[in-house]
Amino acid sequence: MHVVVNAAMSADGKLSSRRREQIKISGSEDFERVDRLRADSDAVMVGVGTVLADDPSLTVDETELLPQSDDGTPRQPARVVADSRARTPPDARIVDDAATTYLLVSGAAPVERIKALSATDAEIVTAGETRTDLDAALDVLEAAGIEQLMVEGGGELIHSLFAADLVDELTVFVGPTVIGGRDAPTLADGEGFIDEFPALQLDGVERMDGGVLLRWSVPVSEPNS
Amino acid sequence: MHVVVNAAMSADGKLSSRRREQIKISGSEDFERVDRLRADSDAVMVGVGTVLADDPSLTVDETELLPQSDDGTPRQPARVVADSRARTPPDARIVDDAATTYLLVSGAAPVERIKALSATDAEIVTAGETRTDLDAALDVLEAAGIEQLMVEGGGELIHSLFAADLVDELTVFVGPTVIGGRDAPTLADGEGFIDEFPALQLDGVERMDGGVLLRWSVPVSEPNS
Repeated sequence: MHVVVNAAMSADGKLSSRRREQIKISGSEDFERVDRLRADSDAVMVGVGTVLADDPSLTVDETELLPQSDDGTPRQPARVVADSRARTPPDARIVDDAATTYLLVSGAAPVERIKALSATDAEIVTAGETRTDLDAALDVLEAAGIEQLMVEGGGELIHSLFAADLVDELTVFVGPTVIGGRDAPTLADGEGFIDEFPALQLDGVERMDGGVLLRWSVPVSEPNS
Repeated sequence: MHVVVNAAMSADGKLSSRRREQIKISGSEDFERVDRLRADSDAVMVGVGTVLADDPSLTVDETELLPQSDDGTPRQPARVVADSRARTPPDARIVDDAATTYLLVSGAAPVERIKALSATDAEIVTAGETRTDLDAALDVLEAAGIEQLMVEGGGELIHSLFAADLVDELTVFVGPTVIGGRDAPTLADGEGFIDEFPALQLDGVERMDGGVLLRWSVPVSEPNS
């Protein structure tokens, strides 16, 4: 499986303000690029924090970008939520019938929430005891035919994926604004690294929308110490 | 006065790890650029958090880069610490006699700390009641002949300067690593903005040391809302 993390951050590394409200960081050129990347992916993944904050649908707007299903209709990429405790609301847009959805939960998810979500169209994948075991859960997705997985955040999920050494590419649009805030969500939150920092390789730099798109890849070698 | 903020951050916007230990983010090419920028500045400023964490001297290593004093010796840029409560230790390297030092304190600084610091070579500038009034303090520095002020962080000071609309330029080296951590210091910490976000203009993009140097300026117009 090929895992591409994609995000837009302010010049100071924030995904949104401390109120977790969505802020327009990029513009139309980057939006088009992101839509194309979604259309080219087999699945698009977010953390449950993003579902609770933004209620995204994660579908591709420009359906002509999509591959066709066997019946000739456009095939939307699957949606994936990393959701250890099954906090996705059963009426969230991400579990509607616009595309297949996988909820990656852990053994710590309360039974009544699993039951409520089982009534939606979502498929529930259980991996890990107290937190979703992302390595094992992504193996399940790969077995289901997901070859390219695009990750759209938030910072907690992105950190977890780097910690599990599961990221292949990181594309970041750095926008022309300062958000600030020691409590504002950043591109990689979580506990953070303290000695072995994941090393990146800069593959591309492209100016767009008043900012810059940085294309990083994660070399297969050992991390920096 | 012209205020240039300069910093090196990881690809996810962090200045250091959650332990506030210094991490090598850039390389020799960026170090040389920073040394030259220091030498070209009349003063170099940090927040007291940086003094307490790193005990920097902020002097220019390559003295041949420096202008000459009247007596023919190299003239180091002045050092400036934003230090509302006068927490700079009297034995900190930044108050040694290697260059002029200004401590920008507020009326809330305890008298005994002011007394201890008055015994050093530092000049104490008082502005503001509970926090240093940066606008007023920078006026004092300008009256003392400081035309170009370089700011080297940390994130609390950088946020305060943006909040006071005192930044003219922001140069950021974005390095090829992920630090992560919701509690790790970022390029702009503080309270953070929630509606009127400072707008930047991208003036330059330059690849170096495996990362990229972004040169932003702050347009004189109104901020984004």
